[in-house]
Amino acid sequence: MTTLPRKESDSQKPLRLGLAGLGTVGVGVMRVLQTNAAMVTHRAGRPIEVVAVSARDRTKERGVNLSNVQWCDDPLDLVLNPDVDVIVELIGGAEGIAHKLVYAALEAEKGVVTANKALIALYGNDLAKLAKQKNIPLLFEAAVAGGIPVIKLIREALVADRLKKVGGILNGTCNYILTNMAKTGRPFQEILSETQKLGYAEADPSTDIDGFDAAHKLAILASLSFGHSVDFSGVFVEGIRDINPIDLKFAQELGYTIKLIGIAQQHEDERIELRVHPALLPSQSNLARVNGVTNAVITDGEFSGRLMLEGAGAGEGPTATAVTADIIDLARGNTVPMWGTDFTKLRPAVTIQREEFVRAYYLRLMVQDKAGVVADITAILRDNQVSLLSLLQRGEKSIENPDFPVPIILVTHKTQESSLLKALEQIRNLDAVLEEPVIIRIDNA
Amino acid sequence: MTTLPRKESDSQKPLRLGLAGLGTVGVGVMRVLQTNAAMVTHRAGRPIEVVAVSARDRTKERGVNLSNVQWCDDPLDLVLNPDVDVIVELIGGAEGIAHKLVYAALEAEKGVVTANKALIALYGNDLAKLAKQKNIPLLFEAAVAGGIPVIKLIREALVADRLKKVGGILNGTCNYILTNMAKTGRPFQEILSETQKLGYAEADPSTDIDGFDAAHKLAILASLSFGHSVDFSGVFVEGIRDINPIDLKFAQELGYTIKLIGIAQQHEDERIELRVHPALLPSQSNLARVNGVTNAVITDGEFSGRLMLEGAGAGEGPTATAVTADIIDLARGNTVPMWGTDFTKLRPAVTIQREEFVRAYYLRLMVQDKAGVVADITAILRDNQVSLLSLLQRGEKSIENPDFPVPIILVTHKTQESSLLKALEQIRNLDAVLEEPVIIRIDNA
Repeated sequence: MTTLPRKESDSQKPLRLGLAGLGTVGVGVMRVLQTNAAMVTHRAGRPIEVVAVSARDRTKERGVNLSNVQWCDDPLDLVLNPDVDVIVELIGGAEGIAHKLVYAALEAEKGVVTANKALIALYGNDLAKLAKQKNIPLLFEAAVAGGIPVIKLIREALVADRLKKVGGILNGTCNYILTNMAKTGRPFQEILSETQKLGYAEADPSTDIDGFDAAHKLAILASLSFGHSVDFSGVFVEGIRDINPIDLKFAQELGYTIKLIGIAQQHEDERIELRVHPALLPSQSNLARVNGVTNAVITDGEFSGRLMLEGAGAGEGPTATAVTADIIDLARGNTVPMWGTDFTKLRPAVTIQREEFVRAYYLRLMVQDKAGVVADITAILRDNQVSLLSLLQRGEKSIENPDFPVPIILVTHKTQESSLLKALEQIRNLDAVLEEPVIIRIDNA
Repeated sequence: MTTLPRKESDSQKPLRLGLAGLGTVGVGVMRVLQTNAAMVTHRAGRPIEVVAVSARDRTKERGVNLSNVQWCDDPLDLVLNPDVDVIVELIGGAEGIAHKLVYAALEAEKGVVTANKALIALYGNDLAKLAKQKNIPLLFEAAVAGGIPVIKLIREALVADRLKKVGGILNGTCNYILTNMAKTGRPFQEILSETQKLGYAEADPSTDIDGFDAAHKLAILASLSFGHSVDFSGVFVEGIRDINPIDLKFAQELGYTIKLIGIAQQHEDERIELRVHPALLPSQSNLARVNGVTNAVITDGEFSGRLMLEGAGAGEGPTATAVTADIIDLARGNTVPMWGTDFTKLRPAVTIQREEFVRAYYLRLMVQDKAGVVADITAILRDNQVSLLSLLQRGEKSIENPDFPVPIILVTHKTQESSLLKALEQIRNLDAVLEEPVIIRIDNA
């Protein structure tokens, strides 16, 4: 007897969707399904129909045809609707109505497709358990890096491999801001305001610029890659608010580019290092060259080696393409356990603290230009086992005004972060050190 | 009644493989399955076992454990073996035993996983028909770009989108040779010999260096992307044998890098342009920076925009990872029609001839340095509606020896290739033109 699973000649009946949220992505999904209806039907093997939608404002003109679609003021009514097979949740947010809707859909044994990274990062373990109990698929390709199909990559294409590292440039807003700060030399706040005007940053930008959006994505990628339960609270997060144009300039002089990166690494003892922070990347590296709103994801596997995917991390078309691909997987009957393996097989996540990170560091100290300052600083570093790769001192302005703070740039060899933090505590207390020291990690990603 | 396809609690029984071919990739698949056995079982939801193998030499030491595996001298015996559910064909070649084996497997209703790009490029339409008749899956991720999961990308992740372009750097051997020619300035034959010694080129290198390997891959990618039947004979193919270090040098001066690329584009009238040839790429472009044996694939879609994947196009680990991913898709019961859509829905391929290509061109003419040569050449170009972007003449050596051939480098604006070919026919006949003109297409990929 063969044990090859054979596909039944599937139902040719339409797969019927209830779509919650008609923002950029929701409208995009409607547009993709309407524009490519015949092609999608051929490829999926059956028609895919949006039978009901829910959004805030019924009267708003959205540029897509909603005339044959039932309107629900309450998204939860989509779940009660017997004509709906699959809920497409594009409202967003870990709590509130999106949260309720996804749980209600699974309870009602309706399939779920979502782009909600916060929900998956915070409630992913619990959702996997419920989805398994109900034997219902929950897909979320668009939750990480928009149009870059990284979840399919890890959960299917790299399924046979053990990954050692995953991550990359996971937030287009931050990448856009840093790219433009580097290009123009202008300060963070100015560039942020412009980015908001262009629509690449939200009115309340903190989720992006403080690194939480990237951290949600990284927590999801790490869990998929290393087979442990998702642990958002284990991610070390540092945003880009404090990046100063002067550091972008010095970085460039030293052959580096500053990017916000998210990196997850599995250590030999199976503990996980999860970190989102600005980093100096060698300017010739692949990730350093990724500019503007573009995202890029790298994976490093034992057998597969290094892969890099680069593309649109957000935007109507790319994100809608990803959501619709999930819907077609459902229509084709092709599904994978939510975390790539049965959730009972996931190990608990044991994450390491920042004190245990081992990296090279860029330090900028603003000092009074007087005799002995460098000697004091380097002695403190030496006493804390932090060894120096290079030192750059620029004292031009202090010749006329000895009190004018001058920058000293130090680049360390790889060192444990705890040693550096101890050294910094002492350096901070030196009288000649006039401002809070700036530390930026160096990474070769 | 819901029309959501639900997965049965699948059989926990092992999926049983018959593996034909124990070269680099075959041994790699054994190694991946043995090294990651527990993980693969968890992820696939069931064990995956190689129950029988076939290869030429039974006595060869391969570094993997074959003690619990049946040995078949004739690969066709794998098909007759009732313990085998799936044939993994890693012998290669469009004809001969690999061809017989894949057909026999489908006839016997056994699933097939193969890395055989020539077979798929030449017999893919016929195989799709047979696979559909028998309702048996045939998977071939490793056939294109080894460890880069481009087939899954196009057939699943970009399933909802209409692609306009697909292609990239599809042959690692050629990329390695061109990278090293550019780096060292040494001639093709020398670098080829070294590449053969390193094992990056075959003893008979013509499949790689004459562009046929890339053309097989491109034909497959185009068919998947544009939904037409696969048409290898429609690919325009030009290899890298005639690339001269002098052209790499001039290209660099002009801000370009020479790469062997394969590009498939769908025109507005739905005809397909399929071409494999060396091209000058802007040195700052993503593809130009892909060096050594690395491959890269770009896609350009109406909704998804531009995506780029970069990774190992060959090698034991990456290719074995891709083959094993296909096997796990089979074990999970996740399959897609061979060409991404039912084969009856594929349009016939209508490809365009090189005469209709519209590109910018790099021309190198070796001329006698005498009065009026440039005037004659530029007049011919003008009379054939070929307009010039730039002209570079280097006459240093001809000052002492007027008969010494000097290069004239011309870069054209975009022009139809037929116009250029007509102009070249006339230019070739000028007395002052001493060698066969060199033409290389310019592409921004």
